[in-house]
Amino acid sequence: MNLARDIRKMGERALQASRELAGLSARRKNTVLEAMAREVQARKGSILAENRQDLKAARAAGLSPAMLDRLALTESRVDALSQSLRDLAALPDPVGKQLRRWTRPNGLVIQKVRVPIGVIAIVYESRPNVTVDSAALCFKSSNAVLLRGGSEARRSNRILVEALQQGGRSKGLPENSIQFVDTPDRDAIRHLVQLEGLVDLVMPRGGEGLIQTVMEWARVPVIKHYKGVCHVYVDASAKPDMALAILENAKCQRPGVCNAMEKVLVHRDIAASFLPKMARRLQARGVELRGDAAACAIVSTMRPASDADWREEYLDLILTVKVVSGPSDAIAHIHRYGSRHSDAIVAEDEKTQTLFLRQIDSATVYVNASTRFTDGGEFGMGAEIGISTDKLHARGPMGLEELTTYKYLIRGTGQIRT
Amino acid sequence: MNLARDIRKMGERALQASRELAGLSARRKNTVLEAMAREVQARKGSILAENRQDLKAARAAGLSPAMLDRLALTESRVDALSQSLRDLAALPDPVGKQLRRWTRPNGLVIQKVRVPIGVIAIVYESRPNVTVDSAALCFKSSNAVLLRGGSEARRSNRILVEALQQGGRSKGLPENSIQFVDTPDRDAIRHLVQLEGLVDLVMPRGGEGLIQTVMEWARVPVIKHYKGVCHVYVDASAKPDMALAILENAKCQRPGVCNAMEKVLVHRDIAASFLPKMARRLQARGVELRGDAAACAIVSTMRPASDADWREEYLDLILTVKVVSGPSDAIAHIHRYGSRHSDAIVAEDEKTQTLFLRQIDSATVYVNASTRFTDGGEFGMGAEIGISTDKLHARGPMGLEELTTYKYLIRGTGQIRT
Repeated sequence: MNLARDIRKMGERALQASRELAGLSARRKNTVLEAMAREVQARKGSILAENRQDLKAARAAGLSPAMLDRLALTESRVDALSQSLRDLAALPDPVGKQLRRWTRPNGLVIQKVRVPIGVIAIVYESRPNVTVDSAALCFKSSNAVLLRGGSEARRSNRILVEALQQGGRSKGLPENSIQFVDTPDRDAIRHLVQLEGLVDLVMPRGGEGLIQTVMEWARVPVIKHYKGVCHVYVDASAKPDMALAILENAKCQRPGVCNAMEKVLVHRDIAASFLPKMARRLQARGVELRGDAAACAIVSTMRPASDADWREEYLDLILTVKVVSGPSDAIAHIHRYGSRHSDAIVAEDEKTQTLFLRQIDSATVYVNASTRFTDGGEFGMGAEIGISTDKLHARGPMGLEELTTYKYLIRGTGQIRT
Repeated sequence: MNLARDIRKMGERALQASRELAGLSARRKNTVLEAMAREVQARKGSILAENRQDLKAARAAGLSPAMLDRLALTESRVDALSQSLRDLAALPDPVGKQLRRWTRPNGLVIQKVRVPIGVIAIVYESRPNVTVDSAALCFKSSNAVLLRGGSEARRSNRILVEALQQGGRSKGLPENSIQFVDTPDRDAIRHLVQLEGLVDLVMPRGGEGLIQTVMEWARVPVIKHYKGVCHVYVDASAKPDMALAILENAKCQRPGVCNAMEKVLVHRDIAASFLPKMARRLQARGVELRGDAAACAIVSTMRPASDADWREEYLDLILTVKVVSGPSDAIAHIHRYGSRHSDAIVAEDEKTQTLFLRQIDSATVYVNASTRFTDGGEFGMGAEIGISTDKLHARGPMGLEELTTYKYLIRGTGQIRT
């Protein structure tokens, strides 16, 4: 087997499929998605059996309990996958929409219309639901997809892709619309992300190591779902009770996700009164607090933070706490240590709110709300393929529209340029 | 001198400048642009003198007359640069515009607003006007810019950047908004395109070699202004006179640019009557014709095309001609050999027009018009920084709006996620 050649062939087949996909009607696509949902449901027993094999191997390989949980499928998780396919069928088709139309003085009529991106490669780790979600979102937006999941989920991913392909085929899913790169060889990733002219976009979803690897190798455009080092700044003008509720929610409601708060910055004028209340409330929820010198001086149960703490995405019940001299200090800190994902201010003062909204250069900037709302569903997008921490093409939650691009259609009556 | 460290410092200074730029008012930016225009005008003599030095060295190095023409500045070219700065001042500011605003059931108000991209690196060759256009477009869209022009234009570029900086400084241009990477060392490009976290976008503008180099090295997002292998397909339903006028315009009006036609595909049903007329008309304009076997059999003065001809961007009075069996054949040929820039159909039949518009996956697809209209000015954008042949973020002519991205501003009243 020649891996480079095989991957290139997959890319060529995907490009071919993408041309057929571009012409599919919304109704046809929705019929396919519903057939996929039925097939996933029908194969539930085999899917769970394959997943048990993956879990067994993962346990033997010593994967952490958190990793095992991410890998595990259950009856209800498979039902949810099936339901998500049906939900997607119910969403509007983004393709073909006219974004703008204008007529030039010479009579040319220019239309800007939404079209699929083409061929998308998804490189991801562990969670088998990413397989179904990514494939379905790419299909609904008429993109061909190449899926390269983690080797620990290989059997689960393989049978899920088979179910999607077989369910879809009966209703007209073009051949090679959804392809699974079925090899544990990491070189497959390298070949995949270097398919210039075949792959239009690579989206890595996983840990920092995976993303660095993709960035290093990539010769085609990449949109990253990178880490969320999310900050909440509590201003002197904040309502303390609102701030406490937001901090508790942003930290504890689901600590293992990218929009959970990792750092809190507190205005020095309220630190002495606010920090002890905050510590009591969060410690009661099991949160470990690490602080700068000023914070530790106020709350003796806080551990001193190291320099690395300011950059780290814990994805756990740990929070780093800093006392700042005011909004400008908070903004400078976020510029330096943030990851441009989601950052929030709790403040009543309108000038301070405006300053924060304008100067923080993150995909999503909040006033008086939890960072946990950065999510396609919470935004009303219906579904998301990830949260972009990049600035090009798409920022923040990426739904169906963000999986499209546009082209210009120009109609004339013989116009030439003079 | 440590090149890597120096380039990184430039990137850090650019990031700092980008934060100041994000807060500049439209009025302030326009005042700066007008001051730049005056300074370029005031320094005309020295600019032309520096350019003569570049030209002298370029002649000694044996650059082609076409390259020398691209490098050369004249009084009227400098006047045009100054005027383009004033024109830009008159265009609307893209930054800060609200793209969408909606309220979620929980009361959160979400605003999607246009913001600058941040720091943009432009890597380009020979033409000194790219220096002024790129710097001015990036500034008007509140982006910091790092300019790395060709070494053959180094003196011209340096004095132009100095004029922009000095003219702007007096009116509040933030320090380091416009920086010139003043070294002939090509390693500077490598360091520049690997500034992850500092540079948000690289735009290479130049020949295939430069673009390949940037693609190979880049670790940050790239939008390419790549080649235009533009096709015109003449359908059996075309009005012959309209087709002839479009072909002549698309090929001859300015053959050295990316939106000039390079290939023509003619429906076999009209080939015998159309091709001799076409040959007479184009040969009278000095066009060399290269054809496939069927075309050569009809027009004896055509030279047989080689396989490489189908992919080549001549940028010259050369045209490759192919006889095709119909629209599907034409579409398949363009899919195989096109560069996704601009392709046109000349046809009266509406179904054929629609098929072509839908299936051709190029930035700009024309019906009954010359490909020469793919241009920011012709689109009504007012100015362009290039024509993207990529599919992500921006396609086709890129103006001020395409130099921006967006962020979400979310205002709440204490909302938490349940």
